[in-house]
Amino acid sequence: MYYHDKRLQYPVKVESPDPVYARMLQQAIGGIEGEIRVAFQYFFQAWGNRAPTTKYRDMLLHTATEEIGHIEMLATAVAMNLENAPTKVQEAGAADAIVGAVMGGENPRHMVEGMLHRHLLSTGMAAFPANCDGVPFDMSHIYASGNIAADMYCNVAAESTGRVLATRLYNATNDPGMRDMWSFLIARDTMHQQQWLAVIEELGGDAGTLPIPNSFPQEKENQKFNYNFFATAADGSPPPAGRWTEGAAMDGKGQFSVVQNQPMGEEPVLGPARPDSGAETQQIG
Amino acid sequence: MYYHDKRLQYPVKVESPDPVYARMLQQAIGGIEGEIRVAFQYFFQAWGNRAPTTKYRDMLLHTATEEIGHIEMLATAVAMNLENAPTKVQEAGAADAIVGAVMGGENPRHMVEGMLHRHLLSTGMAAFPANCDGVPFDMSHIYASGNIAADMYCNVAAESTGRVLATRLYNATNDPGMRDMWSFLIARDTMHQQQWLAVIEELGGDAGTLPIPNSFPQEKENQKFNYNFFATAADGSPPPAGRWTEGAAMDGKGQFSVVQNQPMGEEPVLGPARPDSGAETQQIG
Amino acid sequence: MYYHDKRLQYPVKVESPDPVYARMLQQAIGGIEGEIRVAFQYFFQAWGNRAPTTKYRDMLLHTATEEIGHIEMLATAVAMNLENAPTKVQEAGAADAIVGAVMGGENPRHMVEGMLHRHLLSTGMAAFPANCDGVPFDMSHIYASGNIAADMYCNVAAESTGRVLATRLYNATNDPGMRDMWSFLIARDTMHQQQWLAVIEELGGDAGTLPIPNSFPQEKENQKFNYNFFATAADGSPPPAGRWTEGAAMDGKGQFSVVQNQPMGEEPVLGPARPDSGAETQQIG
Amino acid sequence: MYYHDKRLQYPVKVESPDPVYARMLQQAIGGIEGEIRVAFQYFFQAWGNRAPTTKYRDMLLHTATEEIGHIEMLATAVAMNLENAPTKVQEAGAADAIVGAVMGGENPRHMVEGMLHRHLLSTGMAAFPANCDGVPFDMSHIYASGNIAADMYCNVAAESTGRVLATRLYNATNDPGMRDMWSFLIARDTMHQQQWLAVIEELGGDAGTLPIPNSFPQEKENQKFNYNFFATAADGSPPPAGRWTEGAAMDGKGQFSVVQNQPMGEEPVLGPARPDSGAETQQIG
Amino acid sequence: MYYHDKRLQYPVKVESPDPVYARMLQQAIGGIEGEIRVAFQYFFQAWGNRAPTTKYRDMLLHTATEEIGHIEMLATAVAMNLENAPTKVQEAGAADAIVGAVMGGENPRHMVEGMLHRHLLSTGMAAFPANCDGVPFDMSHIYASGNIAADMYCNVAAESTGRVLATRLYNATNDPGMRDMWSFLIARDTMHQQQWLAVIEELGGDAGTLPIPNSFPQEKENQKFNYNFFATAADGSPPPAGRWTEGAAMDGKGQFSVVQNQPMGEEPVLGPARPDSGAETQQIG
Amino acid sequence: MYYHDKRLQYPVKVESPDPVYARMLQQAIGGIEGEIRVAFQYFFQAWGNRAPTTKYRDMLLHTATEEIGHIEMLATAVAMNLENAPTKVQEAGAADAIVGAVMGGENPRHMVEGMLHRHLLSTGMAAFPANCDGVPFDMSHIYASGNIAADMYCNVAAESTGRVLATRLYNATNDPGMRDMWSFLIARDTMHQQQWLAVIEELGGDAGTLPIPNSFPQEKENQKFNYNFFATAADGSPPPAGRWTEGAAMDGKGQFSVVQNQPMGEEPVLGPARPDSGAETQQIG
Repeated sequence: MYYHDKRLQYPVKVESPDPVYARMLQQAIGGIEGEIRVAFQYFFQAWGNRAPTTKYRDMLLHTATEEIGHIEMLATAVAMNLENAPTKVQEAGAADAIVGAVMGGENPRHMVEGMLHRHLLSTGMAAFPANCDGVPFDMSHIYASGNIAADMYCNVAAESTGRVLATRLYNATNDPGMRDMWSFLIARDTMHQQQWLAVIEELGGDAGTLPIPNSFPQEKENQKFNYNFFATAADGSPPPAGRWTEGAAMDGKGQFSVVQNQPMGEEPVLGPARPDSGAETQQIG
Repeated sequence: MYYHDKRLQYPVKVESPDPVYARMLQQAIGGIEGEIRVAFQYFFQAWGNRAPTTKYRDMLLHTATEEIGHIEMLATAVAMNLENAPTKVQEAGAADAIVGAVMGGENPRHMVEGMLHRHLLSTGMAAFPANCDGVPFDMSHIYASGNIAADMYCNVAAESTGRVLATRLYNATNDPGMRDMWSFLIARDTMHQQQWLAVIEELGGDAGTLPIPNSFPQEKENQKFNYNFFATAADGSPPPAGRWTEGAAMDGKGQFSVVQNQPMGEEPVLGPARPDSGAETQQIG
Repeated sequence: MYYHDKRLQYPVKVESPDPVYARMLQQAIGGIEGEIRVAFQYFFQAWGNRAPTTKYRDMLLHTATEEIGHIEMLATAVAMNLENAPTKVQEAGAADAIVGAVMGGENPRHMVEGMLHRHLLSTGMAAFPANCDGVPFDMSHIYASGNIAADMYCNVAAESTGRVLATRLYNATNDPGMRDMWSFLIARDTMHQQQWLAVIEELGGDAGTLPIPNSFPQEKENQKFNYNFFATAADGSPPPAGRWTEGAAMDGKGQFSVVQNQPMGEEPVLGPARPDSGAETQQIG
Repeated sequence: MYYHDKRLQYPVKVESPDPVYARMLQQAIGGIEGEIRVAFQYFFQAWGNRAPTTKYRDMLLHTATEEIGHIEMLATAVAMNLENAPTKVQEAGAADAIVGAVMGGENPRHMVEGMLHRHLLSTGMAAFPANCDGVPFDMSHIYASGNIAADMYCNVAAESTGRVLATRLYNATNDPGMRDMWSFLIARDTMHQQQWLAVIEELGGDAGTLPIPNSFPQEKENQKFNYNFFATAADGSPPPAGRWTEGAAMDGKGQFSVVQNQPMGEEPVLGPARPDSGAETQQIG
Repeated sequence: MYYHDKRLQYPVKVESPDPVYARMLQQAIGGIEGEIRVAFQYFFQAWGNRAPTTKYRDMLLHTATEEIGHIEMLATAVAMNLENAPTKVQEAGAADAIVGAVMGGENPRHMVEGMLHRHLLSTGMAAFPANCDGVPFDMSHIYASGNIAADMYCNVAAESTGRVLATRLYNATNDPGMRDMWSFLIARDTMHQQQWLAVIEELGGDAGTLPIPNSFPQEKENQKFNYNFFATAADGSPPPAGRWTEGAAMDGKGQFSVVQNQPMGEEPVLGPARPDSGAETQQIG
Repeated sequence: MYYHDKRLQYPVKVESPDPVYARMLQQAIGGIEGEIRVAFQYFFQAWGNRAPTTKYRDMLLHTATEEIGHIEMLATAVAMNLENAPTKVQEAGAADAIVGAVMGGENPRHMVEGMLHRHLLSTGMAAFPANCDGVPFDMSHIYASGNIAADMYCNVAAESTGRVLATRLYNATNDPGMRDMWSFLIARDTMHQQQWLAVIEELGGDAGTLPIPNSFPQEKENQKFNYNFFATAADGSPPPAGRWTEGAAMDGKGQFSVVQNQPMGEEPVLGPARPDSGAETQQIG
C-alpha cells in the first residue's frame, strides 16, 4: 500500500511561464516516453512478478513509487507554465490579432493557439494525462510480459526513449527553473537505464538470459534459421556487413551468417467461401 | 520500394483446424508483441534514420521486409484454422446446445463462442489486424525515437516479448503443422534479439552508448542523483541488495548507491482560479 | 432539429432470450459495420454539405434520422436477449459448473462466459456502444470528406459491409422474432446501397464523377502513370489479366495497361542527426 | 423512432468567420464534455432502462433527442467559421509568410496553422466528430450502468463539465452570433444539471439513493471501514478537517471519522513461474 | 511525493482459483468503473487544484494514494485466481475437449477459453491494465475540469458506477476470500461516494454550487430557456410529469416548466464548395 | 513473401524544407485517408481471400506491395521537410519571440509550434505513423469483410478520400519537388479508383453484385421495404426528388418509391431490474 508527502520530491520553479512549453511538457506526462508509462509499467511488473524470490517485486515497487512523484512534478510544472495564460480573447479577427501582437507586444490569441486550446478548454489551466498532441495515454503501453528479462529490456527501452525526450525538453527551454528540474529528472533516467541493465547482468548477461525466454528448449526451434541474417534485396545484393552478419552470436550459442531470403512455402490456397458466409456468389464457386 | 512473391516464406500447414486457436493466433498478428508491430517499427526506424552512414537504414529494411512475410504466414494460419468453422447455428437455446454437444459430439455454438464471433461476423473466416481480444493494433506502438541505441533496445524489447508469446502459442497447440511454423518463427525471433544487441555492441556496448542519449553532456544532469537507487519504503527499511545498489555502474561512469527518498521540494501552491476561467466562485477567492 | 416517437420503427420480439446472441448483436450496434456508424456518417455529411443546392443535405438527414431508430431497435434486441440471463453464480468452481450444466440442463457460469461478462458487469443487462468484442465505437470511422462522390462510395462501403454483417447475424439465430427484425433491417440495407449508387448515377456515373475529385485538373497529375497496373512480382511474372489490365478505363479518359514496377527514385540520404537533437553521438558524425 | 425538421433548434449566426474558433468549437462536439456524449449517454440509458415504469425511459428520450439538435447547431457553427478560410498557400516559406502577414495584413499559412490542418485536409471545411485536438470521440464515454442513481450522477457530471466548457467557449469569442448561440446552449446545460438532480430528489435524495446501489445489503460490506476517511500521509500528520471527517454521513447511515491508513494485509507471495509459461528459467526456481 | 509498504492495505485470499473470475476482476482494474480511473482522477484533480486554500488538494492526495493500494489488491487477486490455470493444451480438437471435460472432470481448453487467452498469452498469469474485454484503459476517462463542483460530481459518478460494479463482482463469486476483499472495497466506495457529496454540501449544496460553473453571470445565459424541460415527441404528446417539470428548480433560482420543442432557427445554407477544395465540380456551382 | 529495393519508387525532392508542411504530410501517412490504410487493407483482403480462383488474391498483392513504397516516399518527404528545423529555443518568452521573428526574419519558436512539437520531441525529425493531429493510425480502419464486392467499394472509398486528400496537399504547397511527388501519387490514386470499379464491372456490375451480399436469398428480406426511401420529416413534407425516389432500382430488381416513416412497433417494455443486478431498489419494483 502507499503513502504520500504533500511536498515534491524535487523543487519545481518556473521563472517565465510559457503556455507553449506547458503543452510540450505534456509529452513527458502522457506520451509513450513519459512518466505515467514507467510508473505503471513497474507497478504491474511488480504486482505480477513470479519468481522464487520477492526481491525483484520489492525493487520494482521502490522505483514505481518514485515515478508517481515524477508525474506530480511535471503536472505541477505544466500548471505553473500556464499561470497568467489568457482565458479570454479581446480581438475579433485573427489577422488583427497578429498585427496587434507585434505592434503592442501582446497577442492573446497567439498564445491561446500555442496552447492548442485544451489547457484552456478542458482543464482550467492544468495538466492532463495526454501527450503534447492531446492524445490520451492508453495503458496498452504498459509492458509486463511475465518474463523478467523481456520486462527489463522493455524498461531499458522506456528509460532510453524517456531520457531522449527529457534532453529534448531541456534544450527547448531557457527557463532556469525548468532546466534545474530536468537536470534532476535526466539524472534519474540515467540511473534507471543502468538499473534495468544491472538486472540483466545479475541474471547472467547475454549468455544467461538469451534467447528470451531461455526456458523454451532451443532444440524445438528450427536450428537452421536461428542465427541467420535474412537478406531481402530483390536483386540479391548483399546486406551491409556488421557485427550481426558473422562471428559468434551474442549468446555464444550460434554463429551469425547471411542467407538470401527465398520462399520455402507455396502460394496459399484457401477454400472457397461457403454458401451462407455472407460472400458474393462469385466467391462460392 | 517493394516486391512480392506469392509463395510464403515458410510452409504453413494445419492438420486439425481449430477456431479457438485461430483466435489465439491473432495476438501474434495484432498484439503489441506481434508481427505488424515489428514490421512497421523497423520500417519507420529505417525511413527516418539519420546517421553519417546508410548502413543501419539498409539493415533495417532487410528485416522489416522479412517481417511482412511473417504477418502473411500468420494471417494464412488463421484462415486455415477457420476452415470448416460453423457459420450457422442450428440450435435454439444455449442450454440445449451444450447438452447436444456432449451427447452428439458436436457443438456449433460452442465453437462460435470459441471464436468470439468476430471471425464469423466481420471477416468471413479470415484474419484481421487486431489482437486475440479483438482490440485493433494501434500504431502508437511503433517506437522510432531518432536515437539508434534507444531504438535498438525498443527492438530487443519487441523481439523478447514476441518470442515469449511465440513459445506460449507453440505450447498451446498440438497441431504438427502449427508447431513447425512456430519452430521457424521462434528461430527468427532468436536471431532478431541477437541482431539488435549486436548493433549495441558495435556501437561500443554499455560504455559506448550509455546513458542514452550519449550526446547530452552529463555535466548538465544533476550528478548527485544519477547513480543512486532511491528507496521509498515508508518505514525506511532498506531495499534488497543487488547489482544496482553498489559497485560500478554499467557504463563505468559512476558508482551505484542507495539513498532514502525524501522530499527536497515544497508543497506546490498554484494561483487561485481566475474569474473567467470556468471555476466555481469558491475557487477564485 | 429532431423529434421522437417512443414506439419502435419496426417490431422487436425475442422468443428465446440468448445472452450469447446479445453479445453478437453488439457488432451491429458498435461495430464498424454497424448502425451508429451509418447514422453519424450521414449526419456529418449532411451538416457539412457544401453544394449549390440543399437537396443532398436534406436527403442525408432523412436517412440519418432513420438510422437512429435502427440503433434503438438493436439496443432493444440486446436487452431482450439478456432477459433472465444470470447475475449470480451458485457454483464454486468451473469444472463443477460445466458438469452440472450437462447433468442438470443449466449452466449459469457458461452463460455468463457466453456474455463475456460485460453485459453483466457494466450495463445491468443492456446494450452498450461497442462491438461484439467490447471495443468501443470510435468516431474516426465517420467518413465525411467534403467530396460528395467520395462520400457516396464511403456510404456504399458502409451499407455493403453492414448488410454482409446483417445476413451473418440472420444466419446465426433461429429465433423467429430476431429473424423477422433482420428481414426488415436487411431490406433497408438493400435500399441504402442502391440509394448512394443512385446519387453517383445522378452525378453522371463513372464519366461524371471520376477520378474523384473531378475538380482537380488531370493535366496536373502525372499522365504517364494514371491508368497503369503496376506489377510488383519480384521475378517479373505478369499479373493476372482482368478488366483492369487492358481496355478503356472506367471513366473513359484513359487506357488500362500493365507496367512492371521499377525504382525511379534513388536511395534517400537524410542529413546526419544534429548535435542537440537527442541522437547518439555516433549518428552525428 | 425519430423525425427531423431541417431547421435548427436555435439560430446559428457568425459575423466574423474565424478558423481558429472553429477548431475550438470541436471540443463541444467531440470532446468528452461535448454534445455527442450527452446525446448518446441519454439514448443508451433510455434504451436499456429497467424499472417498474417507463417514465424515466420516456424522459431520457426527450432530452437525448434534443441533444442531437445541439450537435447539429455546433457542426453548423464550425462550418460557418470556416467560410473563407484558406485552401491554398501562396507563400514558399514559413518565415516569409509571417512577415508578409504583418506587412500586408493577411497570412494564409498562419490561418492554416490555426486550423491545425484537419478542417482543410479531411473535411472540406466542415465539422468532424473529434475534439479540438483532433482526437476522435470514442464511445467508452457513454456511461449507462443500469443503476439509475449512478446514471443520474454521470449525467450531472457530463452537464457540469459541459457547461464549464461552454462558458469557456463563450469567453473565447467576441462574435455576437456565437455568443448568442452559447447563451442558449449554456441555458440548456443549466436546465439539464437541475433535471438530473431532480431525479435524485424524486428518488429520495441522499437518504433514498445512497450508498449506490442501495439494493446491496449494507451488512455485507465491511462496516468498520464504510464511513472513515483514510489518511495516507507518511508522517501521520492529520488530513485537513472538513464536512467529510466528522459528523453524520450524507446518507444518515453512519458517522464520518478519520483513520490513519495501515497495512492490514501481508506482502503477497505469488507462486513461481511454471516451466512452460514463457518465463526465464531463473523465475521457475 | 510517495512511499510504499510492501504489505497490502487489506488481505487478499483466494480459496479456489478461478481463471474466469480473474478475467472478470479485470473490469475493476482497467474498466471505466475501475480503480486506475479513480486513482488518477483524484491525482490530476489534486495536482491541478486552484483555490485560495490547499485543503482540497491535500484531501484529494490522501484518497488518490489510497486508491493505488486498491489497484494493487485487485492485481494480486487476479494473479491468485490464475494460480494453476493451464498453460498447455493436451487435446487436439475442441469437440473432443469438451467431451473430455465432462467425462473426466477437467477441461484445460475450456478454462483457457474462459480466460480469453490474454492472461495466458500476454502476462504469464498476471493482471494487466485493461478491462474484462481486454480493452486497455485510456486516460481520457480522467476527468479533471478545473471546476471543483464539476469534479466532485465526476467523482460521485465514478464511485457510484464503481460500487455498482463491485457489488456485481461480489455476487459473481462464492469464494470466501474474494467476498471478504469485496466487502472491504465496497465499504470504501460507500465512504467515497459520501465524501465527494460532503464537499458539495460544504460548498453550499445546490444553492451554493449550481449552475456549475457558478462564476458565469446567469444574466448572460438565455433566461427564457434555462429552467424548461423541452419535449420532443413528434405528436406533441406531453412528457411524463416529474420533479423536473414543475416547481422550484433545485438551485432555487428558477421554476421548472415544460416547453414543446420547435425550431427557432432556419435551415442552414453553407456556401458552395470552393474550386480548389477537393470537392466534385458539381458541388462548386 | 517480400523483397525490397533501397531506392524509391519515384523521386522525392524538397527545395524549401517546411516543418509545417511536414506535419500536414502526416495525414497522408497515418490518416484514415492515408497510405498505411490502403497498404494493409489490400494485404488483409488478399491474405483472407476466399474464391474459386487465386486471381483476386494475386492482384491485391501487387497493389498492396506498391503501397508500402508510397508510405516510404511520404516518410522520406516528411524527414526532408524537417531538415534544418529548429531543435533549440533561444528566446525566453513567447511574446518576445514573435516580435523578434518579424523584426529579424526568424522565429524558431513559431516554427516549433508549426511542427506541433511531436516531430521534435518524439522522432528526432522524422515521420511517425499518425495523422496530422498526431492521432496514431489504428488498424480498425482496415476493411476486409470476406465479401469481394463490399471490399471493392471499401477500396474505392479509400482511394477516393485518398485522392481528395492528395489534391489538397498538392494545393497546400508551392514546392516544386513536393508537387512533382504528388503528381505521381495522385495519378496512382486515379488508377486505383478505376481498378476496384473494374473488378465490380467484371463481377457483373450493379446487376451482378447487388444487393451485397448477393448470396443471401432476397425472399428472406422484407420485400415491402427494400426499395423505399423512408422520409422522416416530422411535418410529413416530402423529401427532395432524385434518382433514388422513383424509377428502377440500380440492380434492376425493384422500383424506388417514397414512404413516410411511421412506427410499426410498440414502445418497448423491458423487465424491471432484478434484485441482485446492482440496480437501485426503486428499479426493482
